[in-house]
Amino acid sequence: MSQVPAELISIGDELLYGQIVDTNSQWMSAELDKIGIKVIRKTTVGDVESEILRAFGEAEGRADVILISGGLGPTNDDLTKPCLAKYFNATISLHPQALKELTHLFESRGFTLNERNKKQAELPDKCTMVRNRLGSAPGMWFERNRKIFVSMPGVPHEMKEMMQREVLPKVKAFYQTPTILHKMIKTAGIGESWLADKIKDWESNLPPHLKLAYLPGLMQVRLRLTGTGPDRPILEQEIEREIAKLLPLIDPFIFGFDSETLESAIGKILVEQQKTLATAESCTGGHIAQTITSIAGSSRYFNGGVVPYHNDMKVNLLHVNPETLKKHGAVSEQTVIEMANNVRDVFKTDIGLSSSGIAGPGGGTKEKPVGLIWIAYADGDKTITKKLQLGDQRLINIQRTTIAALYLLWQSLTQKNREK
Amino acid sequence: MSQVPAELISIGDELLYGQIVDTNSQWMSAELDKIGIKVIRKTTVGDVESEILRAFGEAEGRADVILISGGLGPTNDDLTKPCLAKYFNATISLHPQALKELTHLFESRGFTLNERNKKQAELPDKCTMVRNRLGSAPGMWFERNRKIFVSMPGVPHEMKEMMQREVLPKVKAFYQTPTILHKMIKTAGIGESWLADKIKDWESNLPPHLKLAYLPGLMQVRLRLTGTGPDRPILEQEIEREIAKLLPLIDPFIFGFDSETLESAIGKILVEQQKTLATAESCTGGHIAQTITSIAGSSRYFNGGVVPYHNDMKVNLLHVNPETLKKHGAVSEQTVIEMANNVRDVFKTDIGLSSSGIAGPGGGTKEKPVGLIWIAYADGDKTITKKLQLGDQRLINIQRTTIAALYLLWQSLTQKNREK
Repeated sequence: MSQVPAELISIGDELLYGQIVDTNSQWMSAELDKIGIKVIRKTTVGDVESEILRAFGEAEGRADVILISGGLGPTNDDLTKPCLAKYFNATISLHPQALKELTHLFESRGFTLNERNKKQAELPDKCTMVRNRLGSAPGMWFERNRKIFVSMPGVPHEMKEMMQREVLPKVKAFYQTPTILHKMIKTAGIGESWLADKIKDWESNLPPHLKLAYLPGLMQVRLRLTGTGPDRPILEQEIEREIAKLLPLIDPFIFGFDSETLESAIGKILVEQQKTLATAESCTGGHIAQTITSIAGSSRYFNGGVVPYHNDMKVNLLHVNPETLKKHGAVSEQTVIEMANNVRDVFKTDIGLSSSGIAGPGGGTKEKPVGLIWIAYADGDKTITKKLQLGDQRLINIQRTTIAALYLLWQSLTQKNREK
Repeated sequence: MSQVPAELISIGDELLYGQIVDTNSQWMSAELDKIGIKVIRKTTVGDVESEILRAFGEAEGRADVILISGGLGPTNDDLTKPCLAKYFNATISLHPQALKELTHLFESRGFTLNERNKKQAELPDKCTMVRNRLGSAPGMWFERNRKIFVSMPGVPHEMKEMMQREVLPKVKAFYQTPTILHKMIKTAGIGESWLADKIKDWESNLPPHLKLAYLPGLMQVRLRLTGTGPDRPILEQEIEREIAKLLPLIDPFIFGFDSETLESAIGKILVEQQKTLATAESCTGGHIAQTITSIAGSSRYFNGGVVPYHNDMKVNLLHVNPETLKKHGAVSEQTVIEMANNVRDVFKTDIGLSSSGIAGPGGGTKEKPVGLIWIAYADGDKTITKKLQLGDQRLINIQRTTIAALYLLWQSLTQKNREK
C-alpha cells in the first residue's frame, strides 16, 4: 500500500530572511500524516515570480498533493495568485461568491471595502474557491492529472481553520488512503526518559503495525500511538487494547487523551465535583487565569483571579500578613500558602491556587536566585506547596510555572499523587 | 551588484512528519542575512539517499552557498556524509584530527569510544573538517567552482556554535558580499490595505535598492524596509531619510521599530511618564496582565490586575454599581467605564484598563452577539472606550482584544489619536 506523496511550499521573503519561524509547515505535515499523506519535501521560496513558478514545476514532478501557504495578501509583493494563474494558464476575474463573503466579512467588522481589498475577491478561472472564514484571502484548489495544488493564506489561524474545515476532508476524499489511526496519550509531571523506562516492556511488545512516538513539550510528554491497516474497527480495538495495558503503568501522569489539555481536564473535573476556583498570581502575572479561561464555559467554575504584582496589593487585596512578607519575603512558601488560602475567601471559592517567584532575568539574590518559584494549592482541608527551581528565561519560567500549578491542581483534584 | 545566493537544506524524517519545528533554518537565514548572503530557497528532505542527492544537485544549480544541517548522527538512518561523498566523488576514511578531537570529547565526559562512535571521525577526502566543539559529529566544508557546500549537525546548539565560530567567518572571507540592512517599522490599529493606501506614493518613490515588505499579524502590520549596497554608512543614512519621510504619513500607528513590541513600548512610556497601571479583565481572563508582565521590569509600573470573572466579584472587588450591571449588563460600555476607573482606586494607580465581552463560542444573544467586546482606558482626567465586534473564535478574540486594549493604552499615553 503506497502512500500519496505531498510537498509543502511556503512563500514569502520573511521566511527566507529569518524574520519569522515557519510553524505552519510543521503543523501541516502532522495533519497530513494523520490522514496517510506523506510529506516528501518542504520548499520555501521568496516573493519572486520565477522562483515560485520553478518551485511549482519541481513539486508537480515529484508529489501528488502540493500545499502552498502564503503570498495571498492584497499588496504588490503577494504573488501566489498571479503565479498560479500563469502556471495553470488561467484568467483572473472577480469571483461573485468570494466578493459576497468578503463584503460580509468587512461589514461584520464595521468596515467598507476599498478597491484594493476587492482584488482579494478575484480568482483564477481554473480553480475552485476554498472558503476562508477568518480572513479576507480565499484559498484556491486546482486539479490536473490527478494532482492537487491548494493555495492557503500564510496567517497561521486562517490557514489552520481552512485546512481543517475544507482542505483535509477534500484531500482525504480525493485519494484512497489506508486507515491511519492516532491515539494521543497526554502526560505531565514526568520526564521523557523516566516515562520510557516505565513503559519499555509494553513498548517492545507492540505489534509492528502499531508505532509509538514520544513528543516532548514543556513539562509534558505526549505519547502518540499510530496504527495503520485496512480495517478501521479492528484497528480501533487493537489500539484500545494496548491503551488498557498501558494505563496501569503510568496512570498518575495521564491527564487525558487526544485534544485534552490540562486546563480542559481540570475544567471537566471541577464541573463534575461542583467546585469553584480562584487564582492569586504574582510571578505568572495572569497566565494561570488566562490559561484556565481559555476554555469555553470556564465561568461555571472560575470565579476570578487577582494579580497582586505590587507587595502592597498582596496585603490590601489578599490580606497576606505584612509580617509574613517582612519575615519570609514575597517569594516564600509562607506567602504562597497565605495567598492560596486567602484568595478562596476573597472570591468565595472552594479552591485557591497561587504563585510567587523570581521570573527573571533580573531580580535574583544569592538566597533567592532567578528561577526560584513557589506555588500552592488550598481547598480548606489541606494546603499543598511546591518549590520550583527553573532557569533564567522569563517567558519559559512563566509557562513552566503555569503548567506546574495546573498539574498540582489536577493532582489534588484527582488525588493522584505519584509519591503515594 | 548581485548578492551571493544561498540555499539551506535540512535533512531528517522528523522534519517532514511534523514532529519538530525547524527553528535552525530561521536562525541560519538571519545570520547569513547579516553578512549579506541572500537565502533564495529552503529545502527539507527526508532520510532518503535519492532525495538528498537530488536536493544537492538542484541547490548547486541555483545557489553559491549551500548549507546543510542534519543527518550526521551515528545511526544507519543518517545519510548526509555518504551522500556528500558520493556527490563529490570522494572516499571516506578515518580522519586523524577528527579522531583526536572525538577521543578528547569522550574522555572529558568520562566515556570511551566504541566502534560505532569511531565512525563519526571518518570523513570524505575532498572536504575540510569543520570543528564541532559541542558534539561528536564534525562538520564538512566542500568547494567546487567557487561554490561552497557546508554540512553541519542538526542539533541546534551544536550547529549554532559551529556556524558562528567557523562557518560564517569563512564564508564572509570567501565572498565579497554587499551590505544588507533591515529596518522594521511596527504598526498597530490599521489594516494592511489601508496602510498600503496611505503610503503608496512614498513606496513607489523608493529607490530600487530599498525594498518594502508588508508582514501582517493579528491586528498589527510590520513594514520591513531592506536596503542593499556597497557602503554601510550611506545605506544607513538613506534608510533613515526614507523613515523620516514615512513617519508623518502613518505616525499615529507606529509604536516602534525593530524588536519593539506594543507591551515593551508601553513599558518604556510608563517608566518615562512615571505612571502606574492596573488592569480589570473579564473576557480576556488575565491575558492583558500576562502580556504586560511578560516584559522584564514591569513591576516598576504595573501594580497588578484583577480578573473578576464572576459578576459578584465585579461588585465586591471592583465596586461596580450593581445597578449598572442590572440595567446595562456586564458586557456594556457603562460597566467597562466603571471597571477601568475603579481598578485605579483599588490598585492606587494612575491608569486603569478594562475589558468585558462575550469571547465565545457560546453565550451570545441577539442584542449582544458572540464577539461583542468593550474595552476602556481611564486616567482620572478622561475615560476612553472602544467597542469591538469580533468573530466566534474564543482564543483569537482574547488575543485581538488584548492587542486592541494595549493599542488603546498606547494611543492614550502618546496622545496619538487617528480620529484627530
